[in-house]
This record gives sequence, structure tokens and C-alpha cells, in this order.
Amino acid sequence: MTAKKSRIIAVIGGRNPSDEETRLAEEVGRELARQNAILICGGLRGVMKAACKGAQSQGGLTIGILPGDDASAANPYVQIPIVTNLGYARNVIVVKSARAVIAIGGSYGTLTEIGYALDSRVPVIGLKTWSLSRNHQIDKSIVQARNAKEAVKIALELSEAK
Amino acid sequence: MTAKKSRIIAVIGGRNPSDEETRLAEEVGRELARQNAILICGGLRGVMKAACKGAQSQGGLTIGILPGDDASAANPYVQIPIVTNLGYARNVIVVKSARAVIAIGGSYGTLTEIGYALDSRVPVIGLKTWSLSRNHQIDKSIVQARNAKEAVKIALELSEAK
Amino acid sequence: MTAKKSRIIAVIGGRNPSDEETRLAEEVGRELARQNAILICGGLRGVMKAACKGAQSQGGLTIGILPGDDASAANPYVQIPIVTNLGYARNVIVVKSARAVIAIGGSYGTLTEIGYALDSRVPVIGLKTWSLSRNHQIDKSIVQARNAKEAVKIALELSEAK
Amino acid sequence: MTAKKSRIIAVIGGRNPSDEETRLAEEVGRELARQNAILICGGLRGVMKAACKGAQSQGGLTIGILPGDDASAANPYVQIPIVTNLGYARNVIVVKSARAVIAIGGSYGTLTEIGYALDSRVPVIGLKTWSLSRNHQIDKSIVQARNAKEAVKIALELSEAK
Repeated sequence: MTAKKSRIIAVIGGRNPSDEETRLAEEVGRELARQNAILICGGLRGVMKAACKGAQSQGGLTIGILPGDDASAANPYVQIPIVTNLGYARNVIVVKSARAVIAIGGSYGTLTEIGYALDSRVPVIGLKTWSLSRNHQIDKSIVQARNAKEAVKIALELSEAK
Repeated sequence: MTAKKSRIIAVIGGRNPSDEETRLAEEVGRELARQNAILICGGLRGVMKAACKGAQSQGGLTIGILPGDDASAANPYVQIPIVTNLGYARNVIVVKSARAVIAIGGSYGTLTEIGYALDSRVPVIGLKTWSLSRNHQIDKSIVQARNAKEAVKIALELSEAK
Repeated sequence: MTAKKSRIIAVIGGRNPSDEETRLAEEVGRELARQNAILICGGLRGVMKAACKGAQSQGGLTIGILPGDDASAANPYVQIPIVTNLGYARNVIVVKSARAVIAIGGSYGTLTEIGYALDSRVPVIGLKTWSLSRNHQIDKSIVQARNAKEAVKIALELSEAK
Repeated sequence: MTAKKSRIIAVIGGRNPSDEETRLAEEVGRELARQNAILICGGLRGVMKAACKGAQSQGGLTIGILPGDDASAANPYVQIPIVTNLGYARNVIVVKSARAVIAIGGSYGTLTEIGYALDSRVPVIGLKTWSLSRNHQIDKSIVQARNAKEAVKIALELSEAK
């Protein structure tokens, strides 16, 4: 399995996604598994759960980095629950452990993960997520994808390049 | 000093500020001290150092939450260095310990702090910093201020309201 | 793989083990893999590396919770490197993610892990490791095992009981 | 206040101390304040509260590194509450921010702090606390003190030496 080291991809996004975001997350999860990538996420519900569900449906491996003190808080599609009890400081672990990050929708927690990823030079691919301007200048660091398949394709390409 | 508990204000921003950002940070620091607020920051250089310098010049108390393993990495205007060795996961501590956050310029690390603050419902006042859109909708959670004095005034008002 | 959730076992110990500790760690790793347990550890060298080597030799899955910022610091037998950049605060994650902890030798870092495990009511099985007294009273919370096989047997039994 | 940087001393110990431990903690707090040291602790009740109470009674400055998400969980004698939301991973911050650590009684959480301090070469002075043996050899790294005054005296002496 060592060969897969380079293929851990994070999926980030909110706990209360829209139907479209849920569908995108599940599709991203399925596609990651088909490409033999390992999925890492925050381990909870919403986008995280949908992505894990998609990955597991295709036999993929799923890791959940949990904010709380209890492995049983993981969604049922997390195969390897990592218990941190660090609250949302665990966000930094989700992105630093990945070769690329796919952001789907999301709220302020997702924003911290995007910030950590860009600060750590981990590529971020966006699906209906945040866009950023700094002091009135647009920041194009988030690569916007048009659909789930394209997001996974770009994520894996940028992972290889790293 | 217990009365000041409600007056810990964070100043966040980059390590490589422009001249204008440096000037703004120092002015924010001075004004916070004049208002008897305690300044908390990441303890390093750039905006953090300028703000601490300003605060100390007016007899204010300064706290630096350091990412590394060594108190001596603090800028010389940090009076209370807190050594975390948590890397940029320490960002969450800077904002959670504050009643309000003033963001001056800044890069992706500052973005994580803005995300943590908004997620924790700590008010964020911006001076030449990030602005955000989520899925093409502008997010106005960062209160944009026109100058240092106004930023401090709003920060203290929003602190009281909390 | 969900069934294995209950079978994540931590192996903790020093970076500079004696020959006997290295041998014990490798044997513990092998035995954990034979029992279909997933091994979690700090991901570095010494006891951690020997245990991962043993587990991998029997086809077991190995997770390394790394203190630094770089997945490539993991020993070559870590299949899933989790990058925390939290320094030794990551110790809490190693033990909280496990159903039981096997401590082999070890220094002060191992002592923090034993403390976190006992504080979190995660059973600790000891092989040539720390023993504790509190205010002159012996604390028998660490279950001392006589050999690697016994350590794994006790760890799995106590995991089931949890 | 910069001169006091070298005089931040941690007091660690349990949330449910004996009467004697409470008395010792308060006396340690008073003595630290008399010697112009800043007291850092975990910010909660028991030994932490007693030590802060003692320090405040002599006009000393007290810092509480809180495990939870809410500054109001600090004991009433904490003047500077630092909110981490990191759970007991915050223990590493308490000891790394100090020049020396005074351990009074305490349970497994205190044990993690002792481990982190010794691992970081921060001197540990013990009052009715843990004692350690590693693989049947006594470890004398904790300097055992006979009373509160002696504990503070040794802590400050070892701080200077650092």
C-alpha cells in the first residue's frame, strides 16, 4: 500500500450541504476510489459523510480526522477514525495529510482548511465553494472545477506534480 | 485586572506587511493600549510586531501565542510569550482568546484566523484585508474599517455586545 | 473494514530503543497484524519503526501520526502517514485513536502518552516500560506483560471489554 | 515587564486535591507572586485555583491555559484566560511556556505535563506528586521539595540557570 502514500486526497465542506453539494461530494468520493486514492476528511456528516459513502461504495479507503473525543461520532462510512479531541484545530491535520484538497461548498470551517492548505502549498480545487479577494485584488489560488470528475482529475494531476 | 478579561483583542496579519499595514498595526496597538485593552497576537514579526510595539509604547499589555518551541522567537514587544509548538494550529488560540479580532492585510495564515473567528462568532474587523464570497455570493461578515481608530472603536463596541 | 474499528491498537515507545525493545516491538507488530488489528503509532523510528515493520511483514495496516510537517519523515513501514505539525501534542491523538496501548520501553514522550491513555481510560499494557508511584503509593494502572504475545493478547481482550 | 519573561512558572496538579495539596498550592501561588514571578496553569479548579488565589492575594499575575472553548470556565483568580479548545493537548502549552514547573499532587493529566516538561528540559519540582521508575530503575528527574517555599526557591534557581 506504500505506493498509495502519494494519493491521499482531502475532501472538505460543510455539515449542512445543499442537495447539489451532497451529490457532488458523493460523486467525488466514488471517483477518488475508482482512481485508487485514499480519502481523508473531517469524519463527520454533510459533505464528509457523502464523500465517504461514495468512496466506500467503490471499495475505497476512508479516513476521518475527528474533532471530538469519541470514535463513534464518525459517520458510518469512515473506516479509520482518528480521534484528536482538538476541536477545529484538527482542520490543519486534514489538509496537511493530503496531497490535494477538494472543497465542496462549506462555511467558515472550510475556509480555515482552505487557508491552511494554501499556506502549506497543498493545491485546493473548488466546487461551488469560497472565492477570495485580498485588499480588492482577486486571489486565484483556488482552482475552480466544473464538476466532480474534473475536480478529482485536477486533484490527482496536481498531486503528482508535487 | 479581572475586569479587563472582556478586553482582550486580537490583532492578526502577515509577517511581511506593506509600510501602510505596518503603520496601521502600530496605530491599532497604540489605540488598544489607550483604551486599556490587552493585545493578543501570534507573537512574531510584521503586523504582530508593529502592533505590540504600538501597545507597549502606551503601557499596554501584550501576549504572543507562538507557533514554535522557543520563547525567544517572540518579538521584543511581547511581554507574555505563550509557547505552543503547535505550528499554525496555534492560530485558533489567538482568536478564541479574544473578544474581537482586528485583521490588517495578511496572507493565508490570516485567512485561517478569520475563518476560526467567524466560526466561533468572534467579530472580525478588517483593515485592507481579505474579503470573501461563497459560491458567488458576497459574505459581509468581516466589518471593514476605514482607519486604525475606527477599527479599535468597533472592536471594543462589538466586544461589549458579546 | 468497518468491523476493524474496534481493533486499532497503539504501540508507543522511544526513538532509541535497546536491541531487546526493538525485537519486542517487531514481534508486537507481527502479532497485531496476525490478529487483524490495525497498528497506530507516532510514525517515526525506534520502537515505532520496528512495530510497523513487524506489522507490514504480516500484511497488517499501519498508521503513523507524525509530529512534523512532512509525510516523508514517516518510517518506510508506515502506510498511512497523518501529518499533524503539532509536535508532541500529537501524542494525545495516538492514544485517543486506539482501543488499547502497548508501551515498550520509552522515555518522557512515552510517559505523556501513558498519562493521556490512563486519563482517557484507554488500557495500557507495558513491556519493560515506566512504572508509577503517586505520593509514595504504587499505581498499578499499567498492566505489565511478560512478552510480546501476551501484550497483544491482553490488549485485544481489554479492547473488546471497552 | 519584559524582564519578567524569564519568570513565568507553571503550577500543575489535580482538580480534586486533598486539603493539604490545596494549602500547598495556595502557598506556592503566594510565594511566586512575592518573588515577582508570573504564574501559568491550566486555569481550572483544584490546585490551579488555589495557586491562582494565592498569587492574586499578593498582587501577582496569573495566566490560565484553558482546555475548553469558553473563557468563563476559568477560575475567578485567572487574570489572563487563554482559550485553546484543544482539550488536554493544552497541557503541552502550560509547561512549554514556563521556565520551571511545580507539580502538586495530581493525577494522569499532571503526569502528561511532567512528561512534556522533562522531555522539553523544563525543570520539574514535586510536592507530594508522582515518582517514576523506568524498567525498574528509579528516575530522579523530578526534584522533590519539602514545602511550598522550598519548591518556589528551587524553581526560580533552576529558571535562572536555564
